[in-house]
Amino acid sequence: MDIATVNALTYEDFVNVLGNVVEKCPLIAAAVWSGRPFLTLTALEAAIREFIDALPESGKEGVLRCHPDLAGRDLQSGTLTRESREEQAGAGMDALNSADASRMARLNQEYKERFGFPFVICARMNDKANILRQLSERCQNERAVERARGIEEVKKICRLRLEALVLTDAANKL
Amino acid sequence: MDIATVNALTYEDFVNVLGNVVEKCPLIAAAVWSGRPFLTLTALEAAIREFIDALPESGKEGVLRCHPDLAGRDLQSGTLTRESREEQAGAGMDALNSADASRMARLNQEYKERFGFPFVICARMNDKANILRQLSERCQNERAVERARGIEEVKKICRLRLEALVLTDAANKL
Repeated sequence: MDIATVNALTYEDFVNVLGNVVEKCPLIAAAVWSGRPFLTLTALEAAIREFIDALPESGKEGVLRCHPDLAGRDLQSGTLTRESREEQAGAGMDALNSADASRMARLNQEYKERFGFPFVICARMNDKANILRQLSERCQNERAVERARGIEEVKKICRLRLEALVLTDAANKL
Repeated sequence: MDIATVNALTYEDFVNVLGNVVEKCPLIAAAVWSGRPFLTLTALEAAIREFIDALPESGKEGVLRCHPDLAGRDLQSGTLTRESREEQAGAGMDALNSADASRMARLNQEYKERFGFPFVICARMNDKANILRQLSERCQNERAVERARGIEEVKKICRLRLEALVLTDAANKL
């Protein structure tokens, strides 16, 4: 699917195909449709980034809160979105040994209690050891730092999801 | 569930219970959690209204685009959200005769082509005849007028969904 095809989509098809490039936030894809046509994939990505950046701080926290825990309840109960399931599996989150699983659960809980939103990291760019290390380290940050850091990770995830949809043949998703 | 119970919810439970008070926009409930505690249900509703009002025009259009057509594809294929299914059924949208169904489909399409977002109306406050009449009339409006009008309807829907969740015993949804 090239960018011309993306630009020709009705809003309904656009939201159906791209609605989860930001996890569980179809509102964002639905909003940027107003800004079509996009010259390039990067221009579409920029529109999404700008929309997120223009949200109030509560809205950025809201975006983070739409993300599941890594190796958390949704993974265990099979209720992850397709994209998140593939990303978490790629980083080995579905095959943690018991010690790592306990550590992950404890640190996720500590992070959420401290910040009021979940730890978000681009799983495709990190392996299991790196994720555990960063989760542990980032628990020590200030809230505003973590909010901004989480949003940067959301944007990395978004870029990779966009590439997977637009740079490959996603016609069968329409 | 009283407002004290709502205020005591973790963000995860809050989003699970209230995530669809604005159709398919859990980001909005997830964002306003930052503003708890809420003194009353009306204060929670006001926080949601203010969040929506602060969105750029594209964001308001995005909210509208997350709504299904009335008596449309999602109703026919059984993919409406629970709330939307109940609301559409209450207004008789699942039992249109063939002439009304054709008229609704034609007007919905005309509306979407004209405005780039769907016709949104609070189905619980309108019957079939009134919905068809308003759909026909509102197709004639200016885009900015319809965007604002659609958002007012989103807020009415939100109020009724909030009342159904908070003023009744929704503990079993946790």
